[in-house]
Amino acid sequence: MTDRPKTPILDRVTRPADMKQLSDAELHQLAHELRAETVSAVSVTGGHLGAGLGVVELTVALHAVFDTPRDKVIWDVGHQCYPHKILTERRDRIRTLRQKDGLSGFTKRSESPYDPFGAAHSSTSISAALGFAVARDLGGAPPEGVGDAIAVIGDGSMSAGMAYEALNNAGHLKKRLIVILNDNEMSIAPPVGAMSSYLSRLYAEEPFQEFKAAAKGAVSLLPEPFREGAKRAKDMLKGIAVGGTLFEQLGFSYLGPIDGHDMDQLLPVLRTVKARATGPILIHVLTKKGKGYGPAETARDKGHGVSKFNVVTGEQKKAPSNAPSYTSVFADSLLQEAAKDDKICAITAAMPDGTGLNLFAERYPSRCFDVGIAEQHGVTFCAALAAGGMKPFCAMYSTFLQRGYDQVVHDVAIQRLPVRFAIDRAGLVGADGATHAGAFDVAYLANLPGFVVMAAADEAELKHMVATAVAHNDGPIAFRFPRGEGNGVDLPERGIPLEIGKGRMITRGSRVALLSFGTRLAEVEKAAEALSAKGITPTIADARFAKPLDRDMILALAADHEALITIEEGAVGGFGSHVAQLLADEAVFDRGLKYRSMVLPDTFIDQASPADMYAVAGMNAEQIEAKVLDTLGIAQIGQQTA
Amino acid sequence: MTDRPKTPILDRVTRPADMKQLSDAELHQLAHELRAETVSAVSVTGGHLGAGLGVVELTVALHAVFDTPRDKVIWDVGHQCYPHKILTERRDRIRTLRQKDGLSGFTKRSESPYDPFGAAHSSTSISAALGFAVARDLGGAPPEGVGDAIAVIGDGSMSAGMAYEALNNAGHLKKRLIVILNDNEMSIAPPVGAMSSYLSRLYAEEPFQEFKAAAKGAVSLLPEPFREGAKRAKDMLKGIAVGGTLFEQLGFSYLGPIDGHDMDQLLPVLRTVKARATGPILIHVLTKKGKGYGPAETARDKGHGVSKFNVVTGEQKKAPSNAPSYTSVFADSLLQEAAKDDKICAITAAMPDGTGLNLFAERYPSRCFDVGIAEQHGVTFCAALAAGGMKPFCAMYSTFLQRGYDQVVHDVAIQRLPVRFAIDRAGLVGADGATHAGAFDVAYLANLPGFVVMAAADEAELKHMVATAVAHNDGPIAFRFPRGEGNGVDLPERGIPLEIGKGRMITRGSRVALLSFGTRLAEVEKAAEALSAKGITPTIADARFAKPLDRDMILALAADHEALITIEEGAVGGFGSHVAQLLADEAVFDRGLKYRSMVLPDTFIDQASPADMYAVAGMNAEQIEAKVLDTLGIAQIGQQTA
Repeated sequence: MTDRPKTPILDRVTRPADMKQLSDAELHQLAHELRAETVSAVSVTGGHLGAGLGVVELTVALHAVFDTPRDKVIWDVGHQCYPHKILTERRDRIRTLRQKDGLSGFTKRSESPYDPFGAAHSSTSISAALGFAVARDLGGAPPEGVGDAIAVIGDGSMSAGMAYEALNNAGHLKKRLIVILNDNEMSIAPPVGAMSSYLSRLYAEEPFQEFKAAAKGAVSLLPEPFREGAKRAKDMLKGIAVGGTLFEQLGFSYLGPIDGHDMDQLLPVLRTVKARATGPILIHVLTKKGKGYGPAETARDKGHGVSKFNVVTGEQKKAPSNAPSYTSVFADSLLQEAAKDDKICAITAAMPDGTGLNLFAERYPSRCFDVGIAEQHGVTFCAALAAGGMKPFCAMYSTFLQRGYDQVVHDVAIQRLPVRFAIDRAGLVGADGATHAGAFDVAYLANLPGFVVMAAADEAELKHMVATAVAHNDGPIAFRFPRGEGNGVDLPERGIPLEIGKGRMITRGSRVALLSFGTRLAEVEKAAEALSAKGITPTIADARFAKPLDRDMILALAADHEALITIEEGAVGGFGSHVAQLLADEAVFDRGLKYRSMVLPDTFIDQASPADMYAVAGMNAEQIEAKVLDTLGIAQIGQQTA
Repeated sequence: MTDRPKTPILDRVTRPADMKQLSDAELHQLAHELRAETVSAVSVTGGHLGAGLGVVELTVALHAVFDTPRDKVIWDVGHQCYPHKILTERRDRIRTLRQKDGLSGFTKRSESPYDPFGAAHSSTSISAALGFAVARDLGGAPPEGVGDAIAVIGDGSMSAGMAYEALNNAGHLKKRLIVILNDNEMSIAPPVGAMSSYLSRLYAEEPFQEFKAAAKGAVSLLPEPFREGAKRAKDMLKGIAVGGTLFEQLGFSYLGPIDGHDMDQLLPVLRTVKARATGPILIHVLTKKGKGYGPAETARDKGHGVSKFNVVTGEQKKAPSNAPSYTSVFADSLLQEAAKDDKICAITAAMPDGTGLNLFAERYPSRCFDVGIAEQHGVTFCAALAAGGMKPFCAMYSTFLQRGYDQVVHDVAIQRLPVRFAIDRAGLVGADGATHAGAFDVAYLANLPGFVVMAAADEAELKHMVATAVAHNDGPIAFRFPRGEGNGVDLPERGIPLEIGKGRMITRGSRVALLSFGTRLAEVEKAAEALSAKGITPTIADARFAKPLDRDMILALAADHEALITIEEGAVGGFGSHVAQLLADEAVFDRGLKYRSMVLPDTFIDQASPADMYAVAGMNAEQIEAKVLDTLGIAQIGQQTA
């Protein structure tokens, strides 16, 4: 795609141990080369660019100063780990990022000992680092040992309660623990940068313990020569540090802010911390997302997630789209409904773009709430909005709603409050892999008393389900839909509320009924086409609801067919399990029924295209076809029976 | 049980509106009477005593100053709501607290409009209050309207990340919102109390906005006469306030600390806040748990949860126990294992007594971690301990583990780390009611790839499962057990690891196989006894594992019997659903099988004794018996067939 950059120093570095003999000047150069290599790699794979570019110097400095993999560097979320992967024995595969059989786009334990704790969801790194620190002090012994534990966490991830819980616990336990706050929202204006430089040099030159004492107000205890400098450090700290006192109140020593792109600050500070830290310490590092690559620096999202691109121009190569995405259909439908009903409001947990609510926020800013990475709070906030007479739409990815599960149970379901859950990224999601799969929501929601749980079979259905959710004001309701484009079906001008608990017949056939819940319906229809060429015309139905089930339709399907097969983009325990429970309760199995339930398999499926992932899951058209033939006892090689 | 206290003022108060004509002196007296009535009521019902006694004055002051139910007072957790219930139209039923068909031990929306948002799990109140505040400003209109939103939250509840998320969001939104921090850990030593008194009078006398300005350092902007007082207030605030600056950094105005038992502080401060507050404000109130009732004040747990008791002596009437509790068997077993294996460590989220880990903390303090009300952090902390070579036991109630669900999926299951989940309070729990039911854990864990999920049938089984969890180091493992006493079976001297995925046959019979998962086994055996008197001898098996299933045993049971009935203390989606999936996959239903799955019904069941709750759920011996007869098609009135 483009010529590879020249990287003479980087070419000598396969793993961090190779960096130990480099001079500081060479480490500077290594950072430049690492940045170029990162841009080059992502230009051919697409992926998270801005985050990695923002931590190039930090990545070099950490691996130069600390002894990984014995020391545990834990990257929060993991978006920023590409430069880290390049330095840790994975440069040869870096152009397979996020591809089938390639490197994960996140840190991953099974991929490398340099990834001591995998990530993808936000704000887990401090908890993980604390666990390693405690294990170290208790004599826990994984093969590579445990030395220092270092969490690198972004300012956005700090909005999650989990990070606060971990800081709180770490401050209490007082173990040696290093948290690097990678603050890329605050810009480094020259004066602040200058003072930061002064501070960081000061920290590096003064004995660290004295600095700590100074920061705690014990300036007078210091030997005279140190006193003035330490006092100034302390004063500046109070003046500059946005989070300083907050972290100190939680029991951390606070160092910073320092310029995260200046190796002359990073290296001495990290060396000092390594040499002298005792308890928990927070290093506040200022960085720029997208740093050093013009098109990323100037992009609105700082190159957060990009497609393949031209390195010189930065132009991204987006695949042409054939149909609107489910996300945009949801967002547009909600806007349309909100124009008619001023009680509708929308809540996102730090994903306004991903959920499509950025449009809602522009149009109805007073009714749109980005609560931060705070799903627990977000769900309960929605519950109270509903109790207060509003119609809240809680828009979260399936995998992230897991974070608010107790609140869904305790605050929404038990109180039967009409919160509308718009569950995006249901099922397998592609390049983000197993950590982002929306596999469990139907199982964990459909057994909650009073819940309504829907899945859209296509984008027109989704539009109707948004209208259904608006109309349903008698308890919680959820609708799920996948990542990616719709089928290209005609969209109705407006959504019409569906009858709660009623599915729809698609085609009437015989012998076997295929009961689909969600967007596998298109694959079911393809399978049916192939089957009809073999003389079998399946009945096809779209369940629409996992709860309440369409009992009449399902019992009729069971009564009228030799076989009934359910299909859903979720794990066992969900739709098919509820159907099985109904069939058992109604004594349908007593008289014999070829019942099967196609669910996601009992494995975490690595990243690939969604279609490839569903092939692994055994849920594409040809596999549905095979399941029908097998269930009916029809041999599949050439021959067939009527 | 004891004479009712004399309560002349309280007798005139049925609802808060009746308090509006009372003088401040009468409100003082009302508080005294309310305390006496609370003690009297709890002496006959048992329940949470200390928390309510600690907020008697606060309860009176809030209802005297604010206009409930239009103003929303939201009690976090709800342990402390008994005095509130007495003042809000429920005094006539206060001696039915926590009983079948009686008042809930927590706030509950369906019980009273004065309970605008139910509670039981911790740290939801700020999110809820913010939701009401936003709904108010957006014109949301529940029947009783929305005025002020007031969260009353304890210092313990502040350790949860959710509270931080809510503060963070509230500080950002800047809506008028009142958070009362009920701090009952800090004792009110006389000097602090005196200064607090001064401060609270000061706040009440000075215009509130000026105070806010002062607190923000704008002292010089104030008119001269106010300047000195405001400056002193500010200085003291900095000196005294433990949390002041932290809350201020999150965007709250901070008032306090004030003496929460002094009506002369509470009333003027609340009146000033009501008259003048604009944005979010935190009022820091110091109280004593158990205040005003000697036996509670002097108890180690400050009368947190008590049995029925003698009001004069405080002596509690504990029912004699016939067998050790499951909790104590778990705790003792873990101690026994920990003596042999120094890698075992134990984690609780603020429930050392409830989980029995207080014993572990005494014996092995360096290996026991109370992370606070922080299940998200706690689970991930365990994951990293496991990654660091330790054997962590994460001891949580089923209902609270819901709070760490995403961490279970993302940090434990996907990484296949050997965290041991000791899940207490599985199934229905009695007096704590629906909010504490452990109904969903099997469903939400057993579909996670790589998990092992067990349920103990009795206390001896539990001991073996603890040993099994110690031995299983190849991925996550969970074992669940109920609240309350065991069956009184002989306990083995030490636990023996079970073979993973193997159930056990209890008795071999014919026609029907009863496959139990968990402690319903005793009821199954009772049912079998009754059935054998009718000529039916069921086969009984204990599954032990919901995952991996004992395929061979289950398929053999299905093959050898006319009917197979699973029984579990959990909702649909769990054990029975996995069995159904197996039977479907293996084509067992094709040839006909009377399969039934007895699960918790699709309702939230109100508090009663566990036995009564299981009667409502239809899962006691006689109901199991009826299910067998019905499944076999045997008429149940007198007659029977062979």
